[in-house]
Amino acid sequence: MTKGAETRQVILDEAAAQASQVGLGGLTIGALATRTRLSKSGLFAHFRSKEHLQLQVLAHARARFVDKVARPAVARPRGEPRVRELFERWLEWGSQPGGCLFVAAQFELDDQRGPVRDQFVADQLDWLDTIAQVFRTGIGEGHFRGDASPEQFASDLDGIVLGFHCHSRLLADPLAGDRARYAFERLLDAARPA
Amino acid sequence: MTKGAETRQVILDEAAAQASQVGLGGLTIGALATRTRLSKSGLFAHFRSKEHLQLQVLAHARARFVDKVARPAVARPRGEPRVRELFERWLEWGSQPGGCLFVAAQFELDDQRGPVRDQFVADQLDWLDTIAQVFRTGIGEGHFRGDASPEQFASDLDGIVLGFHCHSRLLADPLAGDRARYAFERLLDAARPA
Repeated sequence: MTKGAETRQVILDEAAAQASQVGLGGLTIGALATRTRLSKSGLFAHFRSKEHLQLQVLAHARARFVDKVARPAVARPRGEPRVRELFERWLEWGSQPGGCLFVAAQFELDDQRGPVRDQFVADQLDWLDTIAQVFRTGIGEGHFRGDASPEQFASDLDGIVLGFHCHSRLLADPLAGDRARYAFERLLDAARPA
Repeated sequence: MTKGAETRQVILDEAAAQASQVGLGGLTIGALATRTRLSKSGLFAHFRSKEHLQLQVLAHARARFVDKVARPAVARPRGEPRVRELFERWLEWGSQPGGCLFVAAQFELDDQRGPVRDQFVADQLDWLDTIAQVFRTGIGEGHFRGDASPEQFASDLDGIVLGFHCHSRLLADPLAGDRARYAFERLLDAARPA
């Protein structure tokens, strides 16, 4: 990595951490300059506008999510092992300090319009498609019923992980992980061939 | 209702609507004065501080939620009819313009400290307890298995409704309601006596 690319990673890591706490809308180039000890004018020159910064942060977080969750899942054998890896990695992702930027963004962006929302919606749809596709490999392998709906599974799993976020973070429920895993096992049970 | 109490309801309705769009943190007495065409000084005299306004809005929204969701559910026969009423009313509540204030608050308040968060956490725990209690009446009536966990059911149902919010609002998925209802039926099936 060049020095410039490294600096960029550091800035975007910091911005993503900040956004997961204060929301994408709460991101400011000024606060980012203070926290990275870089000049405000340098950051402005680089990111041009708040909207562009928000889009870069989303792209950066999405790339990290793919590295940490999607790619390791797909590296596992097709079918149930892949679904399990995806789920466990996703919970781990949501357990990082500050929580999950994407979860926060869902509730921040739902009443907004514009390119940041559009990009985020496209990313979310891609992620639901990825879950459905990973589940589909399990139908192919005979781990799951042929008439199980991959889209329903993706939707159900998303709900389980959203619940995990709320219960573990806001309510600080020590059982949040156990409850999410229990729900996940029931979801797999229901998908198995009779 | 006295004139004062009526005015108060109008203000709090407006504030709750505003908060469901911009978050409790985005509420300002100034914007509220503009939208209700009341004097800023009058509103300040009444609510004293932003924090007090946020607490009043939470209490107001909670009272409306009880009227619209919890009370009609508990008015139905014990057990499954009560659980079904609770679920359908809850989806309806989340379908109002601007979405659900509580869902937005979950992701807004999770990184904050203070009396607003504390009150909200207590409210959320009360609500999960109410769901568990409603489910428990179904065990008593023989609609659900004796070894089913009411707390797990509450957690699972919360996840389904959170997913519904995200998929219906941010993703504008026309199938969001169908998917939530499908997941709900599977959850009831899993709870039924063998």
